[in-house]
Amino acid sequence: MTDTLTALSACEAARAIRRREITSTALVRACLDRIAAVEPTIEAWAFLDPDYATVQAKARDGAQAEGEPLGPLHGVPVGIKDIFDTADMPTENGTVLHAGRRPAEDSMVVALLRAAGAVILGKTVTTELAVYSPAKTRNPHDPSRTPGGSSSGSAAAVAARMVPLTIGSQTNGSVIRPAAYCGVVGYKPTHGLISRAGVLRQSLHLDHVGVFARTVEDAASVAQELIAYDPRDPAMRPRPRPLLMELGNQEPPSPPRFAFIKSPFWDQADSDARAAFLEFKERLQCREVELPLPFAKAAQVHRTILEADLALSFSGEYQHGKEQLSPTLRAMIERGQGTLATDYNRAVGSIPELRRALDDLLRDYDAILTPGTTGVAPADLTSTGSPIFCTIWTLCGVPAVNLPLLRGPQGLPLGVQIIGRNNDDARLLRTARWLSLWGGNFRGK
Amino acid sequence: MTDTLTALSACEAARAIRRREITSTALVRACLDRIAAVEPTIEAWAFLDPDYATVQAKARDGAQAEGEPLGPLHGVPVGIKDIFDTADMPTENGTVLHAGRRPAEDSMVVALLRAAGAVILGKTVTTELAVYSPAKTRNPHDPSRTPGGSSSGSAAAVAARMVPLTIGSQTNGSVIRPAAYCGVVGYKPTHGLISRAGVLRQSLHLDHVGVFARTVEDAASVAQELIAYDPRDPAMRPRPRPLLMELGNQEPPSPPRFAFIKSPFWDQADSDARAAFLEFKERLQCREVELPLPFAKAAQVHRTILEADLALSFSGEYQHGKEQLSPTLRAMIERGQGTLATDYNRAVGSIPELRRALDDLLRDYDAILTPGTTGVAPADLTSTGSPIFCTIWTLCGVPAVNLPLLRGPQGLPLGVQIIGRNNDDARLLRTARWLSLWGGNFRGK
Repeated sequence: MTDTLTALSACEAARAIRRREITSTALVRACLDRIAAVEPTIEAWAFLDPDYATVQAKARDGAQAEGEPLGPLHGVPVGIKDIFDTADMPTENGTVLHAGRRPAEDSMVVALLRAAGAVILGKTVTTELAVYSPAKTRNPHDPSRTPGGSSSGSAAAVAARMVPLTIGSQTNGSVIRPAAYCGVVGYKPTHGLISRAGVLRQSLHLDHVGVFARTVEDAASVAQELIAYDPRDPAMRPRPRPLLMELGNQEPPSPPRFAFIKSPFWDQADSDARAAFLEFKERLQCREVELPLPFAKAAQVHRTILEADLALSFSGEYQHGKEQLSPTLRAMIERGQGTLATDYNRAVGSIPELRRALDDLLRDYDAILTPGTTGVAPADLTSTGSPIFCTIWTLCGVPAVNLPLLRGPQGLPLGVQIIGRNNDDARLLRTARWLSLWGGNFRGK
Repeated sequence: MTDTLTALSACEAARAIRRREITSTALVRACLDRIAAVEPTIEAWAFLDPDYATVQAKARDGAQAEGEPLGPLHGVPVGIKDIFDTADMPTENGTVLHAGRRPAEDSMVVALLRAAGAVILGKTVTTELAVYSPAKTRNPHDPSRTPGGSSSGSAAAVAARMVPLTIGSQTNGSVIRPAAYCGVVGYKPTHGLISRAGVLRQSLHLDHVGVFARTVEDAASVAQELIAYDPRDPAMRPRPRPLLMELGNQEPPSPPRFAFIKSPFWDQADSDARAAFLEFKERLQCREVELPLPFAKAAQVHRTILEADLALSFSGEYQHGKEQLSPTLRAMIERGQGTLATDYNRAVGSIPELRRALDDLLRDYDAILTPGTTGVAPADLTSTGSPIFCTIWTLCGVPAVNLPLLRGPQGLPLGVQIIGRNNDDARLLRTARWLSLWGGNFRGK
């Protein structure tokens, strides 16, 4: 029974609960059983109180029994990266410096999930302050390998079927990379689509909320609930909500056109990954396109912004607990402390220009297709792998999806990343759904 | 006849044109006659082609004769600070480095003025790149005195009745200060209310479009036409247009409550100004309020942002023509080149906090009342006077109005500045209208 319930997608589970075929309590119980079985190996959770999760599930079942109106995620458990504030659980941001931290309020994302009826199952492991230094989590496909970061626990928990949905964040490659390494769907919406109020801040320009799921439909269904204008997030604009579910689930009128882009970092992909992508591209019959010249500097632009923003965002941690920061993060902060305002502002000012170049390129294609990572998850628990195949797209704030369509050495997952036009998330999800169906066939060959 | 026509307010002139009591051609002719008479002394214009102005006016009259729908400013001449791009006139930004510059397109403000039916009379003199170094313009009340800057020509042209309306800009005190020195109404709307597309950029955080007129109603009428969402200006948000004319012209339900604020810079006001303000405050029976502590650092915050932004905005001018920049501007740019990104971002990050403190303070008052300048226009043509009484309000982006209600030594104008809540421009204009009526009585005593 546990296996049946934990195999349900979030949308299937929500439907089954709504039709009273299963209860939220039973589903949460199944997730907790699964966690009890695999968590000792995977260690995906920073905080989990099985009793409290059960209390929430029972309350959802009770509300349903009393005829209360049900949100789209009624009774569905969701795991939350431990950098999103929760009023009822600790939020420790992956650092001993914040040990025991109890926020007074829910982050906007958590508040919206509760409003949609979700059960907040627990908090998932993040790297140190959501930057590079790995925490305890291991890759469910091979515990000697990294799950990727910084949303390590969120990706691993979904991959290991501990929970159907999790929330993560991406400032460089922290959604797409762990999704690729763990073989799940990862979706990083357009910058400014989901509020970051109550989320650990690294960089207002670069931080994105993202989601993990096992199907594109699930990723769309949870993201849909998270889109609500919030003036506390300066990147947000009041505008109509995109209809991710309604439009994302449509059949494209004709097969999507993909621009295969090796990007300036193709040489950093390993030979297995390069071979797999070239074959995939051939089979899909998609055209190879060169990124315009300004993108050559994009990784440096990202780094200039990120390091200066880390220096300010973590100035308190640096001042009061420098010794307890990892050497990597300290070095980034210290470089950021020396960044000049003109260099920073020139970098920030180049973002709209790069985004326009992508908009132009995507006039003729539904999506860009490119590797999500340099290869399969490295057999190394001291690192979380390279985010370089995500950097450009994060910098531009355009939507990105990882699809677990390829296999590398030892059958390990290799992620296909597709990227859409700024604010055209519904089209990207429609394309992702099409490609995951097509890719299922491709893999079958 | 020239005197009668140039004495009309913009609203009176628009009404008279609409009723066919006067023509735009006659009004523009009267302005050109007045300019011919006083321009040799005042030197308010950077570009003026009387024939071309007349051609525009005749076209407006022709359109009216043919029954075309008339905009609210149909046939009314407006002077434009020479940092706003005009497709049909040079835009030289007050520097020899841009001599002969001919923009391809109108700035948004100029395009909106044309759409409202205005005649673009010509371009008014600005200081060097709209910063401090004075150009040729003199104060109409005493040609040995500065008109203030950087919108020197715009303030002087309205004060000298060369034109009923002009457009200016404010990054520190460039609307309120020249309006105060020249004895006219100056209105700097909330940051983000008017698009800066096609305007010389100093600082995205600090630059504001502003207007000059001889009545509050006129200032409201032209500003009303300039408010239109423009995604090219990153400070703008799509939102309902404030009804400046409709609400600003209402009678307040009860006499407005003013918070008299000396600000941290009271000591920099001269003794005549201090005495005049203390008397004014007594007569108005308004309460004196202290600014909260964080404002002590506001001028430094403004300087940190401005200098770093100047260093980037004028990097081309610095690189290619350093020798032709004034020593003052060069020094600002060079300080800005050394500003650290963390200091810059900390400064930018403190703006919302300061704005919230003002919002709180203004819960109990309709407006803040404070000097617009340190005193009357200095008898010095090598400077444009101190902007210090404007710095805080510009930094916070809140709306400000100068009213020419007081007189200093030799009967020179002394400006009363009132400041409103962020995005509460209609209330501020309503209060300004009330105060200018009350102040007329006060002055009569």
